[in-house]
Amino acid sequence: MKPKVAVLLSGCGVYDGAEIHEAVCTLLSLQQLGAEPVCVAPNIPQYHVINHLSGEEMPESRNVLIEAARIARGNILDIEQAKVENFDALAMPGGFGVAKNFTTWAFKGPDGDIIGSVKQFIRAFYEAQKPIAAVCMSPTTVAKALEGTNARLKLTIGTTTAASPYDIAGIQEGLRKVGAEPVNKTVNEIMIDEENRLVTSPCYMMEASIVDIYEGVKKTMQALLAMVKEQATA
Amino acid sequence: MKPKVAVLLSGCGVYDGAEIHEAVCTLLSLQQLGAEPVCVAPNIPQYHVINHLSGEEMPESRNVLIEAARIARGNILDIEQAKVENFDALAMPGGFGVAKNFTTWAFKGPDGDIIGSVKQFIRAFYEAQKPIAAVCMSPTTVAKALEGTNARLKLTIGTTTAASPYDIAGIQEGLRKVGAEPVNKTVNEIMIDEENRLVTSPCYMMEASIVDIYEGVKKTMQALLAMVKEQATA
Repeated sequence: MKPKVAVLLSGCGVYDGAEIHEAVCTLLSLQQLGAEPVCVAPNIPQYHVINHLSGEEMPESRNVLIEAARIARGNILDIEQAKVENFDALAMPGGFGVAKNFTTWAFKGPDGDIIGSVKQFIRAFYEAQKPIAAVCMSPTTVAKALEGTNARLKLTIGTTTAASPYDIAGIQEGLRKVGAEPVNKTVNEIMIDEENRLVTSPCYMMEASIVDIYEGVKKTMQALLAMVKEQATA
Repeated sequence: MKPKVAVLLSGCGVYDGAEIHEAVCTLLSLQQLGAEPVCVAPNIPQYHVINHLSGEEMPESRNVLIEAARIARGNILDIEQAKVENFDALAMPGGFGVAKNFTTWAFKGPDGDIIGSVKQFIRAFYEAQKPIAAVCMSPTTVAKALEGTNARLKLTIGTTTAASPYDIAGIQEGLRKVGAEPVNKTVNEIMIDEENRLVTSPCYMMEASIVDIYEGVKKTMQALLAMVKEQATA
């Protein structure tokens, strides 16, 4: 049996949704590694729409599920219809969508909210001990989903010792505030938290090429599927 | 010197723009093979906007360059500013955008129009003997761009002898009408037209997985870059 992996998308485009290269590399590497990816997204409005050419906000509204369907070529489930019992693992690409549409981390940092459907979905995987992979900015969403539980997640969103377009130290501080333990990892490394069955890696949180993204995501998915296999033989 | 390859995008999403998996696999494989991809798109309105979840038209208008910038993470040139002399080759992912935004093939078949900027751009590569790669539906745009010249392009948009979601025979008939010679190729094959310095492959014109797309695009880009190398040593 092929392991079935839910791929949780937050839209379509790095500045207001799911990071497209990370999302496609997730689908590609899962299938290369013998798993079956299934795209999932919440049926909610995007926080806003960003013109990816100018960086400015556009006077439009778009829906996360409908835009994520572009990456999924129409093959996508509404998160309300996606049953965790039908999946072996969860994979989360990054992009600002996770910190704008799933949580409000982009605006309020660790004090922001997380939407109920995404929180429930992530918690259900965690509670069923089904492994979770999160790259780029998405570990902040996993940390928010498990805030207030006893989970002491060890995760990475990058490293303060190499070039990044983002304030890695500030985000790490926020992660500590919600009870997680950030670990410095470069774009070529992954962080494996065996206890919490969580695999994370920095991807575009650091200065990176699309080849770095493909390799980072592939390593992350390899570790995720190794955890699925452990589970199956345990 | 790294070969510089213009990657011509027609939007962001298979049903009204560039096919996202093909576009990302093009950028990824070009970089894996040691080339530098540079995204390019025309600054024009999309023909229409399709809801990728329902397949229905949405009452919106979007711009090809602005939407393509999502795939390019903002790093994209307006085709009017992109000088062919600065590039060694051209690569065209597919998606309905090529047949809705670049040409009107999706509605009028071979009798439809092609927009001036795209026609000029493709012709300039052809006339400079700089190689062109086109996957999925985009060979129809190359054929339209060179319609009325002496070019007798040998190209593929797939094969009539394996499963496809599209009317391959009908599109092949249209290609003959504009002076090209369609060749049957499966999703695992590529078509190399040495004389016209054109490489084509079917990708999502056939029933295909994302792994098929990655492998098909990578083979196509390998052949494209081999032609660039031939040129350099000629």
